[in-house]
Amino acid sequence: MDFKEYIRVIPDFPEPGIRFKDITTLLKDGDVYREAIESIQKMVEDKEIDLIAGPEARGFVIGAPLALMMGKGFVPIRKSGKLPGNTVEADYGKEYGKDKLAIHRDSIQPGQKVLIADDLLATGGTIAATIEMIEQLGGVVVGAAFLIELGYLDGREKLNGVDVHSLVTY
Amino acid sequence: MDFKEYIRVIPDFPEPGIRFKDITTLLKDGDVYREAIESIQKMVEDKEIDLIAGPEARGFVIGAPLALMMGKGFVPIRKSGKLPGNTVEADYGKEYGKDKLAIHRDSIQPGQKVLIADDLLATGGTIAATIEMIEQLGGVVVGAAFLIELGYLDGREKLNGVDVHSLVTY
Repeated sequence: MDFKEYIRVIPDFPEPGIRFKDITTLLKDGDVYREAIESIQKMVEDKEIDLIAGPEARGFVIGAPLALMMGKGFVPIRKSGKLPGNTVEADYGKEYGKDKLAIHRDSIQPGQKVLIADDLLATGGTIAATIEMIEQLGGVVVGAAFLIELGYLDGREKLNGVDVHSLVTY
Repeated sequence: MDFKEYIRVIPDFPEPGIRFKDITTLLKDGDVYREAIESIQKMVEDKEIDLIAGPEARGFVIGAPLALMMGKGFVPIRKSGKLPGNTVEADYGKEYGKDKLAIHRDSIQPGQKVLIADDLLATGGTIAATIEMIEQLGGVVVGAAFLIELGYLDGREKLNGVDVHSLVTY
């Protein structure tokens, strides 16, 4: 399936010059959404995985169903201040803007194998911060899976050799 | 299964006096997470449903996997300014704070049957705004499903008779 047919490109959002990849047009088609998640699952099914972690908010629409399909637990990565328990945090810069991410300290036990899932790999800032936090908790990042990769932004260069899988590349 | 055993209650978050229901302790257990979503699915499986809509961000961890399991499309309800396309918006007040929600105009076709899914029914403000937007687009809200309902806040009274299903009630 050519998933790009279901992804809408919206120019100049959220800032002039950015061609935003809108996945809501893919998500609303139940068959295409399911096939996308199953295709991501196939890309990573040879890995040993204990948990799937995904950054809010769009990472949840990829990581949470992927976790369900694979029978794994899901660990939400959130903006600072959103998680109620004890957290570790990391700064990140992304394609546009800058912010702080957080993860619950008790969400990952030392040695657990974690797959990161998100909708989009752009400059890699969000994912680099996510890797940093997971490793601080003693987790082992076994890979990162994306619906979309913006290859021209070289985000995977920032991920310290983590194994990257993308369903669609621009 | 007693899902309450897996939900952590954190006092005074995000404000004094609020006993926050933390579902991250449930989500990280793959078996319990899957059983929770399957149990929600069983509560609504007699309904005719075209789409599942869920508000960001925690609504995504319930609504998106529920959509996948049921083979339906997923429509994200987001905070104002986050969706790149043409939207309708609605104000809402919630258990704490106040904000504006948005939905893509082309996400629902007139007559489509929509199930709303979220982690928590509190005062019902978020869900009332979500119903308002779906109906503005001509969608038919066939029900609302929650992991948790705070029964003492009477949120379901605000939902204009929409059929409410909750897995766990406090």
